[in-house]
Amino acid sequence: MGLPGGFEFTGIACGIKPSGKLDLAVVSVKNPCVAVGVYTQNIVRAASIEWNQRLTPTEGFMAIVVNSGNANACTGQQGIDDNQTIAAIAAQHLEAEEDQVLVLSTGVIGQHLPMPETIKGVEKAISELGDSQDHFERATKAILTTDKGPKTVESVVATNSGEIRIAGMAKGAGMIGPKMATMLAIIISDAKISPEKAQQILNRAVEQSFNRISVEGHTSTNDALVMICNGNSEIEVDSEESILAFEKAITENCIELAKQIPADGEGASHLITIDINGATNDQQAECVARTVAASALVKTAVTGSDPNWGRIVSAAGYAGAEMDVSKTSLRLNGFLVFENGQPVEFDEKQVSRALQNQFETLIELTIGLGTGAARHWTSDLTQEYVRFNSEYTT
Amino acid sequence: MGLPGGFEFTGIACGIKPSGKLDLAVVSVKNPCVAVGVYTQNIVRAASIEWNQRLTPTEGFMAIVVNSGNANACTGQQGIDDNQTIAAIAAQHLEAEEDQVLVLSTGVIGQHLPMPETIKGVEKAISELGDSQDHFERATKAILTTDKGPKTVESVVATNSGEIRIAGMAKGAGMIGPKMATMLAIIISDAKISPEKAQQILNRAVEQSFNRISVEGHTSTNDALVMICNGNSEIEVDSEESILAFEKAITENCIELAKQIPADGEGASHLITIDINGATNDQQAECVARTVAASALVKTAVTGSDPNWGRIVSAAGYAGAEMDVSKTSLRLNGFLVFENGQPVEFDEKQVSRALQNQFETLIELTIGLGTGAARHWTSDLTQEYVRFNSEYTT
Repeated sequence: MGLPGGFEFTGIACGIKPSGKLDLAVVSVKNPCVAVGVYTQNIVRAASIEWNQRLTPTEGFMAIVVNSGNANACTGQQGIDDNQTIAAIAAQHLEAEEDQVLVLSTGVIGQHLPMPETIKGVEKAISELGDSQDHFERATKAILTTDKGPKTVESVVATNSGEIRIAGMAKGAGMIGPKMATMLAIIISDAKISPEKAQQILNRAVEQSFNRISVEGHTSTNDALVMICNGNSEIEVDSEESILAFEKAITENCIELAKQIPADGEGASHLITIDINGATNDQQAECVARTVAASALVKTAVTGSDPNWGRIVSAAGYAGAEMDVSKTSLRLNGFLVFENGQPVEFDEKQVSRALQNQFETLIELTIGLGTGAARHWTSDLTQEYVRFNSEYTT
Repeated sequence: MGLPGGFEFTGIACGIKPSGKLDLAVVSVKNPCVAVGVYTQNIVRAASIEWNQRLTPTEGFMAIVVNSGNANACTGQQGIDDNQTIAAIAAQHLEAEEDQVLVLSTGVIGQHLPMPETIKGVEKAISELGDSQDHFERATKAILTTDKGPKTVESVVATNSGEIRIAGMAKGAGMIGPKMATMLAIIISDAKISPEKAQQILNRAVEQSFNRISVEGHTSTNDALVMICNGNSEIEVDSEESILAFEKAITENCIELAKQIPADGEGASHLITIDINGATNDQQAECVARTVAASALVKTAVTGSDPNWGRIVSAAGYAGAEMDVSKTSLRLNGFLVFENGQPVEFDEKQVSRALQNQFETLIELTIGLGTGAARHWTSDLTQEYVRFNSEYTT
């Protein structure tokens, strides 16, 4: 489809990751442009999050530097100073101000960044910026930590005035919690839009996408989603029609990008979609969806292709939402297993096979009280997740 | 120490569990006495829970029938009828009314009880009642499901008027959620006490014990704690001094019994104690303790003896409680690893060895804002937990 014009990318290995893998990415623009962000609601926030929160929304964005392998969180004043140094070095080489440079960090919490390597890395990365698909791909790889591979989206929005292009990249496979924008993600577009409108659109898109995913429900200190709109298309997003079209496309791109995170959840063998219907309102439906998604017993049942539906109904029951069991029904991958409070006779082996043979598991729970609905995506919980996370730093 | 007098016990195998293990217990008294209960806050409740909630607190208690291997939850009207039949059959053989018989069920959700076997089982169990230590032990075994072994307490309270005896039994290793009285437990005592006082004491004891434990945080449909006081000691618990002494003993017994549940958590290799201090108030401290306890990343770090303390601090940060990171400090098994918002240099191998060599892990987090404190117990998360719960029903 082609990337939005007017952006440059790079991804290099500078030595933050002991493995020698790519660990530093830069995304930059030629002229100051709009950037907006949504950040973690964790009280414990990385230095980069505090930095970006002060600077966005902005019309003066010039570049974003992303390092992986080190979260620079819980690192006190030195962490704050290191973050500023990264922005200052990048600004110097891009002929910009440090306040025009955003920073994202992801990786282990509580360790200081290796600054000599990082500074050299920022200089090298900027010297290698380019606008090719290959440059973009190197950036999408350099932001990863425990991910199996890059997570990207690209799309084109047709408006009355012409086409707007959108592309996005994300990282995240663990420490994925559902209370806010989760993980790291960057959306770029050549749309011409005001920071206020861009921020509103991003906030609403996040509610339907990044706020609806989880792996183990642990909200990270570094979650951030940044959207950059450089106006390169010369197409103004200001009419009602163009705003609707752009918001629809941004939301769809955010959902597509967000779903790739639990699909690549650490050790995951299934992507689970949880559809709640018939709740008193959407908020209550979301609360039920989130609680079912957080249940280790639901996740391990899916891992084992076990149609043990009592775990799902009982998780819904402690979500804190209104529920009438006698009006509650449940389908697993389309098979009705519980109807209006009564168990339904079904072929356990057939349902188990359906769970086993498909990577995507669909849980449809109808509460039967009202019209509230919500959808949430999560990964299952495998022995591999536990093995992996028992061996992370040591 | 000896059991409280005036109680009889039994535990038999009647065929509810396909394995042929003990699956039906009865605890009974000679004369009607006080019984109080605390039950799950899950909206999805087993037939037995609804039954007991209607009957307690009571002064007319005669017996409690407990079956394991089947939760009789999500079973609609038939489940309600089956539960009533159990109480009616027991009452008939004990020369009591059905409303004097409580029922507890635990096991798989959504399946109907095998009633012919269960009815014969109740009759057989009652014919074998006795007051020996052996009878008590058979009952403590018959209430178990995935537990490795019985969970019991016994103690004696000295009051000015003489000694009161207390004993208790519990079951629970999975589906242990922290929002209310969790699992099944029965506390018996020969104290003479009013139902109102007994209920108040049990409610407060639960707040410090069964409401402070978790395995994976999944609140079950069948959680129940019943305390029976038969007055056999002839010692009235009505003076301020005797109430204080009795409440202290009940609370200590509840804590000791409750801790045995995460210590026997499915697949657990560590019992984790989480002490939160310095929160704005006790409620906020509890919220932080519960959130840290629920984190799969904290649990797996303990499993792997990994002093990856960032996972603990970041979990505290999304608990929803007030927190000032620059005043926050953390100790792991006594080792200071994070102090006033700054990482502390420590010997990772030494701390890892300390985590590895001890079954009990101590996490001490000080928030530095006020005097709020809370303690919570949980198990770690192992590959064995996942293996076990991926293979449960099928």
